[in-house]
Amino acid sequence: MRVLGVDPGLTRCGVGVVEGVAGRPLTMRGVGVVRTPVDAELGLRLVAIEQGIERWLDEHEPEFVAVERVFSQHNVRTVMGTAQASAVAMLCAARRGIPVALHTPSEVKAAVTGNGRADKAQVGAMVTRLLRLDAPPKPADAADALALAICHIWRAPAQNRIQRAVAQNRLQQAAALHASKLASKGRTA
Amino acid sequence: MRVLGVDPGLTRCGVGVVEGVAGRPLTMRGVGVVRTPVDAELGLRLVAIEQGIERWLDEHEPEFVAVERVFSQHNVRTVMGTAQASAVAMLCAARRGIPVALHTPSEVKAAVTGNGRADKAQVGAMVTRLLRLDAPPKPADAADALALAICHIWRAPAQNRIQRAVAQNRLQQAAALHASKLASKGRTA
Repeated sequence: MRVLGVDPGLTRCGVGVVEGVAGRPLTMRGVGVVRTPVDAELGLRLVAIEQGIERWLDEHEPEFVAVERVFSQHNVRTVMGTAQASAVAMLCAARRGIPVALHTPSEVKAAVTGNGRADKAQVGAMVTRLLRLDAPPKPADAADALALAICHIWRAPAQNRIQRAVAQNRLQQAAALHASKLASKGRTA
Repeated sequence: MRVLGVDPGLTRCGVGVVEGVAGRPLTMRGVGVVRTPVDAELGLRLVAIEQGIERWLDEHEPEFVAVERVFSQHNVRTVMGTAQASAVAMLCAARRGIPVALHTPSEVKAAVTGNGRADKAQVGAMVTRLLRLDAPPKPADAADALALAICHIWRAPAQNRIQRAVAQNRLQQAAALHASKLASKGRTA
C-alpha cells in the first residue's frame, strides 16, 4: 500500500510518501514541502499548492491520500489557511478517484508514538526509526506528513481495501448527480 | 465589467453573474446554486463544487470573481466547510488568471443596502430592485452571490482595472517561483 500523507498549510504544506503494510517494515518513497510565498494573493497560493500536490500524485501514484483533519481551536487565521490548503489536497486526490482519509493530530501521534499528546521531537524520532532514516526529516511539517501516511497504513487495513474498491464508483455517481442537479437548479437570464 | 459572485458553502454554494459599471444600471446574467449531497465524502463534495464553478466560468467568462470572505466567529463546523468551498472557488478562478476579490458580509450589505447590518430580506429586496428582477432570487445564497457581484462592481473600479492588468503576469510568476522552489525542496528516496 502506497500512501501520500499531507500536513496542510498555506506557507508550508508537508508531503511524504510511505509504502508498506501493517506488521512489516515500512519504506519512505519521498518527502518534501510545498511552499507558497506569504505575500502572494490567496488564489495564487492555492494554485501553487494544487500544482505541488499534482506533481507528487503524478510522481508517486499513491493508492491513498491521508490528510490531517483540521480543527478550529487553534489560531483563527492559521486555521482558515489550513482548511483551504487541505481542501486543495483533498480535491486533487478525489478528482483522480484516490480515496482520501482524514486523521486527527492525536490519532497520528498515538499511532506513531503510542501517546496522543507526544511532542514534535518524539514524532520525528519515531518516524526516523520506523522508516529507518539517517536523521529526522525537516521541517516538522515533512515529518508530520510521513507520520500521517504511517498512521493510515496502520489503521484499519480492511477498511482501506473496501474504501478503495468503491472510490472510483462513488466519484462517477457524484459527478452524475451533480450534473443532473446543476441542470435543474441553474437558470440564466 | 462582468463579475461572478460566489457565496461559498459545501451544501449550497450561491453563484450569480452581474454585468455593468458603477453609476449605471446593472444587469443579471445568471444566478443559481451549486449543491452537493450532505452525506457524500468531503473530497467528492469538493470535486462537485469544482465542476459546478468551472461550468459557470465556462458559460459566463467573468472578468472578476468576488468571493465572500470567511470569518470564524460562526459555528465551527460550518466555517470549515465554508473555508474549503471558498478555496475551491478561488482556485478555479486563479488558475484561469481571473482576479479574485474577497468582500466581507458587512461590506456587501453596506454596498447594497447602505447598512452593514441589514438582514437577508433587505439584501434580497435591494438585489431585486438594483437588477430589475420580478422577484427576489431564492435561496438566500443565490441572492447573496448577486449582492457580492454588485458590491464588487461598485467598490474601487480603478483598483479593479489595475488588478486585472497584473493578474495574468502574477500567475506566471507564481508558477515559475513554485516550480523552482519545489525542485530545490523535494527529495525522493
